[in-house]
Amino acid sequence: MDYSTKMKKHQGRSSVIILLLFWFLTGITAYGSDSPSPQVELVAPGIWRIRFGNPEEFTPTHFRTAPIAKAGLDNMPFQGSPPVDPDRIVFQASDRGCSLRLPMAGRESIYGLGLSTELFDMSQSSKGGQAGRQIFLKPTDLPENDLGESHAPDPFYVSSKGYGVFVDTARFATYLTGDVTPAGSQEDEAGNSVQTSTTALYRPRAQRVKTMLVDIPAAKGVDVYIFAGPTPLEAVERYILFSGGGAVPPLWGLGVQYRGYAKYGADDTLALAQKLRDEHMPCDVWGVEPGWQSHVYSCSFVWNTNTFPDPDGFLQKMHDMHYRMNMWEHAFTHPTSPIYDQIKPWSGNYLVWNGLVPDFATPEGRKIFLEQNDAALFDKGVEAVKLDECDYQPESPAPWSFPLATAFPSGLDGEVMHSLFGVLYQQTMLEPYQKKGLRTWGLVRNSQALAAPLPYVLYSDTYDARCYVRGVVNEGFNGLLWTPEVRVASSEEDFYRRIEAVMFSADAVIDSWFIKNPPWDQLDRGKNNRDELMPDRDTVVQNVRKLLQLRMTFIPYLYTAFNEYHWTGKPPIRALVLDWPNDPKVRQIDDEFMFGDSVLAAPMFAGEPQRDVYLPAGDWYDFWTHARITGGTTIEATNDLGQIPLFVKDGTLLPLAEPVEFIKPDTCFNITVNVVGDHPADFTLYEDDGLTLDYASGQQNQILLHADGANHSFTSTGDYHGPARFKITGWAQF
Amino acid sequence: MDYSTKMKKHQGRSSVIILLLFWFLTGITAYGSDSPSPQVELVAPGIWRIRFGNPEEFTPTHFRTAPIAKAGLDNMPFQGSPPVDPDRIVFQASDRGCSLRLPMAGRESIYGLGLSTELFDMSQSSKGGQAGRQIFLKPTDLPENDLGESHAPDPFYVSSKGYGVFVDTARFATYLTGDVTPAGSQEDEAGNSVQTSTTALYRPRAQRVKTMLVDIPAAKGVDVYIFAGPTPLEAVERYILFSGGGAVPPLWGLGVQYRGYAKYGADDTLALAQKLRDEHMPCDVWGVEPGWQSHVYSCSFVWNTNTFPDPDGFLQKMHDMHYRMNMWEHAFTHPTSPIYDQIKPWSGNYLVWNGLVPDFATPEGRKIFLEQNDAALFDKGVEAVKLDECDYQPESPAPWSFPLATAFPSGLDGEVMHSLFGVLYQQTMLEPYQKKGLRTWGLVRNSQALAAPLPYVLYSDTYDARCYVRGVVNEGFNGLLWTPEVRVASSEEDFYRRIEAVMFSADAVIDSWFIKNPPWDQLDRGKNNRDELMPDRDTVVQNVRKLLQLRMTFIPYLYTAFNEYHWTGKPPIRALVLDWPNDPKVRQIDDEFMFGDSVLAAPMFAGEPQRDVYLPAGDWYDFWTHARITGGTTIEATNDLGQIPLFVKDGTLLPLAEPVEFIKPDTCFNITVNVVGDHPADFTLYEDDGLTLDYASGQQNQILLHADGANHSFTSTGDYHGPARFKITGWAQF
Repeated sequence: MDYSTKMKKHQGRSSVIILLLFWFLTGITAYGSDSPSPQVELVAPGIWRIRFGNPEEFTPTHFRTAPIAKAGLDNMPFQGSPPVDPDRIVFQASDRGCSLRLPMAGRESIYGLGLSTELFDMSQSSKGGQAGRQIFLKPTDLPENDLGESHAPDPFYVSSKGYGVFVDTARFATYLTGDVTPAGSQEDEAGNSVQTSTTALYRPRAQRVKTMLVDIPAAKGVDVYIFAGPTPLEAVERYILFSGGGAVPPLWGLGVQYRGYAKYGADDTLALAQKLRDEHMPCDVWGVEPGWQSHVYSCSFVWNTNTFPDPDGFLQKMHDMHYRMNMWEHAFTHPTSPIYDQIKPWSGNYLVWNGLVPDFATPEGRKIFLEQNDAALFDKGVEAVKLDECDYQPESPAPWSFPLATAFPSGLDGEVMHSLFGVLYQQTMLEPYQKKGLRTWGLVRNSQALAAPLPYVLYSDTYDARCYVRGVVNEGFNGLLWTPEVRVASSEEDFYRRIEAVMFSADAVIDSWFIKNPPWDQLDRGKNNRDELMPDRDTVVQNVRKLLQLRMTFIPYLYTAFNEYHWTGKPPIRALVLDWPNDPKVRQIDDEFMFGDSVLAAPMFAGEPQRDVYLPAGDWYDFWTHARITGGTTIEATNDLGQIPLFVKDGTLLPLAEPVEFIKPDTCFNITVNVVGDHPADFTLYEDDGLTLDYASGQQNQILLHADGANHSFTSTGDYHGPARFKITGWAQF
Repeated sequence: MDYSTKMKKHQGRSSVIILLLFWFLTGITAYGSDSPSPQVELVAPGIWRIRFGNPEEFTPTHFRTAPIAKAGLDNMPFQGSPPVDPDRIVFQASDRGCSLRLPMAGRESIYGLGLSTELFDMSQSSKGGQAGRQIFLKPTDLPENDLGESHAPDPFYVSSKGYGVFVDTARFATYLTGDVTPAGSQEDEAGNSVQTSTTALYRPRAQRVKTMLVDIPAAKGVDVYIFAGPTPLEAVERYILFSGGGAVPPLWGLGVQYRGYAKYGADDTLALAQKLRDEHMPCDVWGVEPGWQSHVYSCSFVWNTNTFPDPDGFLQKMHDMHYRMNMWEHAFTHPTSPIYDQIKPWSGNYLVWNGLVPDFATPEGRKIFLEQNDAALFDKGVEAVKLDECDYQPESPAPWSFPLATAFPSGLDGEVMHSLFGVLYQQTMLEPYQKKGLRTWGLVRNSQALAAPLPYVLYSDTYDARCYVRGVVNEGFNGLLWTPEVRVASSEEDFYRRIEAVMFSADAVIDSWFIKNPPWDQLDRGKNNRDELMPDRDTVVQNVRKLLQLRMTFIPYLYTAFNEYHWTGKPPIRALVLDWPNDPKVRQIDDEFMFGDSVLAAPMFAGEPQRDVYLPAGDWYDFWTHARITGGTTIEATNDLGQIPLFVKDGTLLPLAEPVEFIKPDTCFNITVNVVGDHPADFTLYEDDGLTLDYASGQQNQILLHADGANHSFTSTGDYHGPARFKITGWAQF
């Protein structure tokens, strides 16, 4: 079905009405607030594109990673008109850019707008109440701010009213989520008493009729995409399918990742890697930090043969221990890099740390950059990369990245490039894997719109535990992935809490880049680097091992969630508001999330011996005690033994595996299917080679799990004929 | 002399050289970094305009308050070429705006860029050292930030190398003062050690050759003005004369201003005003806060006849007590205002506090707005206004002012309007006084470029004592005025320190808008409003009275400094670096300042029983003890009795007056001329009616004070023939 031919035109009449209305309400004579007829086009079922003015060339859709996942969208038919009336959107252009006004309802919650780790419902005023707030879609390395700046400023939001809006721009757009008053409307009156405090003077005032204002600098036009629900989850699914569908990890990508000390060479790394194996700590991915390069900050992309005299031999030995390798880099290219002169004409006209900024929006820039990365990494079988420092410092007195005024050979300016740099860098570094037909599962510090198909997980330099969990809760709204990686901890309790949380994320990363020994040996950074281990490190190792094993038991279940992310657009990890849109009590819950379809996780935080957990309507089971709990209520949860509060939904099947230490290409998970409640829904396990892209062309099996009373069955269909990855070894009533 | 005809053209050759150089250094092929030939025009002696691209229409020079003060500039002849070579300025335009690169030297300090109260030398990195920083020229209500955002984001800076640069833009420009590395240049290498701390990774790196980058959104061209020195002070003077020359206050404007409780009506106000007179507290100006209006937030501009039943009678009684009246307002116009419907078509298309935002860039908007203000204020003889809330909240999650996307009938957008709103508002409210030929001395919370001729003093809602003093030190660089007004204090010590500082500012304001009684009655806000006075209030009153009297003794001296500000452009209050440009020790001194030509003030701060005071080379005299101190050294100052550390420069004449309680049109100051040192320079007192604009057309006397050993003389010349304002009653060797 080709939607691009289905053009619906809203012309003359509607814009005349808008102009008349505008004139009538405001008494303003015409002065540049030209509202040309918006063109409305049905892009896919339930997705409309509305074009205002003359959009810019370099937008997220121009650089999309994957085509629209039309098959998935065809499975979500939608009849009717856009949930946001195009005629009620007011477009206005000026020399400085353009803006959009969209209608909002009085008690409408807004989610998304990137991967904020500080904010949740974006319609909540910073001073309390649903009076709206200003959200800045700027990429930042400091996402723990109340401005909405994040590691992935995606101009998509989903409303509690069950629709989504995507503004196709790579500009640093600003959203005012209900806190503006266009002339002609009225805000609630403050009354008329003389105030004698600034708090009273400047308090935000909630409005009966609200307006969303989107301010887009520089652009003289913009495409707006409206996504139908009818539920918020369906609007999100449509957006993710519009992005191309969610990324499917290789099976090993769901295992544990350990990142070693930045100053270690080959010998120290191999010794530590062997130690983890000796202690049976589950670990699939080993991360090597900057030390592997001959020059860093900026990067040479050449091995440091002083510390890694034999890169091939080193990688072979790591692979022999069944580690997948994830190598750190950033894009800024140092003068000593062999590609420096070659990539110079395909770089921006400002340096970062004395390094060139490759223009990944040009084929030449990508090609030259990859030639060296192929030689250093991909041709040697490195399975993944960590793409660091690709963000920006928008409100910093000391920004270290390239200025907004930078010009790139592609024609992008510094602002657009900063928005897209992470996406373009990910796309570039994905090419070698795509050529080889392999999956990867990397790390990246910046992303933006339409990023769902990119197999990279966002991480941060910031470290607030609540913000980290909030990132997990928020990631689903925009088709993003986030790891609340564990670095250090202020106490053993904090350490366990952080490990517990990261085990229920898209990438279970323990990042020891600045400590010689693993954190379970010694949490104190100074002592760790003096090799002074904690007296109780053996106990800590045991406890941590159990937590890593818990992660491994969930891998087949989580793999299903990711496959559904790909095919149906449903985020594997998501806020409760997406699953219970009609329950007002979940509208502000930013510290619980669904992990797949059956499990609700409620991480705990250090210093809080118990926490409230709201369980939506329906029956639930405590994961640890199997106690049945009636939902629609708030309970108090505790956690004495590394047992993160987990609740399993009644009427589900929960496949859990025997934990393995690492996942080889022929690893077969032994799975027990837990029957939760009396009438469980069927569950589908997705089985394939877990490594290549063959799943996408159908070389995948769907194992349908079914339970009806004492009758249990599993049925496998599909064209995957390689070694079995999943074996149903038993069934258990939960 | 008409400088506008002196056009010097830099064409073909220079731009070809720039492009060749660019190509050679960076290897970048052409992609939009078009550097069209800049047009260089000599505007006045030592002032050049360089035009790049197609500048915008709505810039500071488009809305200038006063014509260029050519007479003053003709007195500063300058031969030779611009101190910044136009051929070394790199202009670049893109869809998002344009940018300029200007050459900088390695150890160049940068001052100005508006009225920051947090920063001083703008080339100092936030992480230490002269590595440059990012400065945002955005108007803000929270100037105590490290981003350079201020109450007066003026795109003018002066360099320690003795030149000034003004970028004629009302956009939110960003300055990177030496922390960028254009491709083709090299920053100092970090060396090549693997770092394991973020501090080390992200440290700023000072460069041998530095570049100033000015980033201007939206504009496709810009005029840059270069101001010759050869000293920084002369560059500043040229900028102030280019602005039209500094504002001359009415004599009463230099007296003390007291602002009363916002909830007081006429009776309470009159009673308190009488009490100040009874206690002989010097006070010239009485400020009435929002309570005078029938509706506030937003404003009706109509008297509240419940609390002020007889506005004319009230004003008459205040005038009878010899108070000058300063009435509070902001511009946002409430629906109950009589002008609401009339001004609607001449307002922006977003409301603020439910009020219209008048478009002061249209004659109609100004006219309608003034009609009501004339009726309420100016026709009733109100001498001044306080223009509140005309700033912005650029990085706030809860901005209360109009959005940047606002459209105004004049064609200004919200960004340009926010930059200029304070200036346009001041200009509008100045018109009635200009029509009457009267001077005024008001308060305003936002200003921008070319503001020197505007008789309004900036103030803030913020309150850090060190920032307040830094504002005093910084104001001179941009031809701005600032009052570190006293509101409350955390202790009596803090109160004295703040009073001491504000007495040496452009407006000696004590602002009691949220306390019923003056702060000298009770510093604790709660107790003050319960009328519980401090046990030692009589002592405090005595001490405060002395400090207010100290202010009054300086008025003739300060009046000279303001007149010279007008005629020569020399700021009356200024940083030491302007008077001692060759002394590297003053480059970072942001807590001492020159108060006129003879007096160095070094305010103290609560909790610090002594402070270091650096005195530049030459001899100095302690103002209080008359002890002689040899300069070029740092001394320790103390302050036990409200005696702010003051030092008088050797070889000067310091006229000090007998303090009066208030300044009537016929008040004559009795002046003792202090002869400081053995060979004092002459001093000129400016005498005129102190009220009208007649001084500008020559109705002013210059009283030349001269001392040579025991011979003292004063000679008055000029065309002022009104009542004598200054009487030399004695001479004293200091």
